[in-house]
Amino acid sequence: MKVAIVGYGNLGKGVEKVLKLQPDMELVGIFTRRNPDGIKTQGSPIFSMEDMGKFDIDVCILCGGSATDLVKQSPEIAQKFNIVDSYDTHANIPQHFKVLDKVCKENNTLSMISTGWDPGVFSLQRLLAEAILPKGESTTFWGKGVSQGHSDAIRRIKGVVDAVQYTIPKDEAIKKVRNGEGGNLTTREKHLRECYVIVENPEDENRVKKEICEMPNYFADYDTVVHFISYEELKKNHSGMPHGGIVVRSGRTDIETGHTWEFSLKLDSNPEFTASVNVACARAVYKAYKEGKRGCITMFDIPLSYMSYKNVDDLYRELL
Amino acid sequence: MKVAIVGYGNLGKGVEKVLKLQPDMELVGIFTRRNPDGIKTQGSPIFSMEDMGKFDIDVCILCGGSATDLVKQSPEIAQKFNIVDSYDTHANIPQHFKVLDKVCKENNTLSMISTGWDPGVFSLQRLLAEAILPKGESTTFWGKGVSQGHSDAIRRIKGVVDAVQYTIPKDEAIKKVRNGEGGNLTTREKHLRECYVIVENPEDENRVKKEICEMPNYFADYDTVVHFISYEELKKNHSGMPHGGIVVRSGRTDIETGHTWEFSLKLDSNPEFTASVNVACARAVYKAYKEGKRGCITMFDIPLSYMSYKNVDDLYRELL
Repeated sequence: MKVAIVGYGNLGKGVEKVLKLQPDMELVGIFTRRNPDGIKTQGSPIFSMEDMGKFDIDVCILCGGSATDLVKQSPEIAQKFNIVDSYDTHANIPQHFKVLDKVCKENNTLSMISTGWDPGVFSLQRLLAEAILPKGESTTFWGKGVSQGHSDAIRRIKGVVDAVQYTIPKDEAIKKVRNGEGGNLTTREKHLRECYVIVENPEDENRVKKEICEMPNYFADYDTVVHFISYEELKKNHSGMPHGGIVVRSGRTDIETGHTWEFSLKLDSNPEFTASVNVACARAVYKAYKEGKRGCITMFDIPLSYMSYKNVDDLYRELL
Repeated sequence: MKVAIVGYGNLGKGVEKVLKLQPDMELVGIFTRRNPDGIKTQGSPIFSMEDMGKFDIDVCILCGGSATDLVKQSPEIAQKFNIVDSYDTHANIPQHFKVLDKVCKENNTLSMISTGWDPGVFSLQRLLAEAILPKGESTTFWGKGVSQGHSDAIRRIKGVVDAVQYTIPKDEAIKKVRNGEGGNLTTREKHLRECYVIVENPEDENRVKKEICEMPNYFADYDTVVHFISYEELKKNHSGMPHGGIVVRSGRTDIETGHTWEFSLKLDSNPEFTASVNVACARAVYKAYKEGKRGCITMFDIPLSYMSYKNVDDLYRELL
């Protein structure tokens, strides 16, 4: 199958890398809004997005951000090609779905949206756990990992040169959830926020720390720890993009009989794992499209066998 | 949807119980090969299997054992009804699939086989993890939990009154697998077998212990611990049917970048959780049948949304 990458940031670079691990995929090219002449890839051809129409592509993997890129690019590109997008603004997913479903049905294409690990793999775990254990409660923890949104929020504070923010689930909360006692945990009880910050001027440290800790939505509802560090330290110890998290469902089949479902991911590179999910989803889109499926779908709507490069007989024999 | 239970052992009792938790299912009745007059249920009507043909049933949940019941019952019942069966003899699944696919296609019905947690939920985890991280290795641990097969094997030894065998994953092995170093683990390194045994005559203890530890296939390849206990102790501390296990995939997107996928179940009651999976699979069979699907399928072959009683819009909004 012929795949294209649209957008060449961290996620696009991740997709370029993990495509090399797939026995059944060929990268047609990377497409960018920027001038492709100035961009160095890991060896793959790169073209202007304006030229996409000239290519023969089975599935486009969209690697832009949700806030501004995907809301615009997904419906545009879905007019001509099948797409996978990792749209992750949870509250707006139904609206994004509706737009793409219409575009795809009018243009005879197929889109899968909100692929990745959350939304994505974590969503599948929540769905499967709830379907099997309808009585119970599910809790999701994120981290330990770098939150780009929170890091960016700190970088916008006056006097801040650079910053990295880690979201960290609290052990005490995880323990409670595993014991089926997680129902009333507050935001503050579930996660800690740890920040590594470079300031221009050491005299600003107290003000910057106060501004971080009191920032509404981002930090005010959490316990927040702020460390001021040097550029060298940030570069050496905090330049990776690790992430991960835990989904726990504590369910019951009667008052005395409990069952704990626990799923966790520990990722050295958030963009490379997200890329890995998106690539497997591109394969699913390819198979579903060939079967005649049109419109918008999610990871909830396809047999999981569609994500594997193996045929079902091998899957039954090796993995069932 | 109208559901029937076929077979009323531990699993059948579990299905009867968890059906009460489903908002969209009605139990038509329990069907048994025995004389139904002598059998006390949790309040549900029970009938002879011979009378099944008189009932209107959407999906039959088969609750017999793989070795002798399901190989015979599944193809018979699938001639008239849609079925779910938790056939779990891994090596013979392709053959069982082939038989049922033929019967169902000839009779316009749908079967889902090998539902449960392994095969079943664990298989889905292995499939999804491998599809997303094609470079890596998956390892499955079982336990801590009671193995009926191993308990039965001990019970067949001369002089043994009763026995319960626990399969226990070794911590050291789990640690290695989590670190991506699990490739060469032997059977002995992965699991321990712990046995609680009642003997008729204390003088037999040494012989019984030797016979257990040297039993080929069941114990000879494992470290085995044998405790001799009283009837009262067995009844008090070892009469539950807990189980569980862990699936770990240690994958890489390059030589330096690793990702750990870990899924675990801790079950107070193995039959009640297996029953919960089978009931959710019965819902999936009902939906797939209504969509026109015929033949034999597995949990690999259906969208996971089919397992939930919620409609997809609610699933997108609440769980994606």
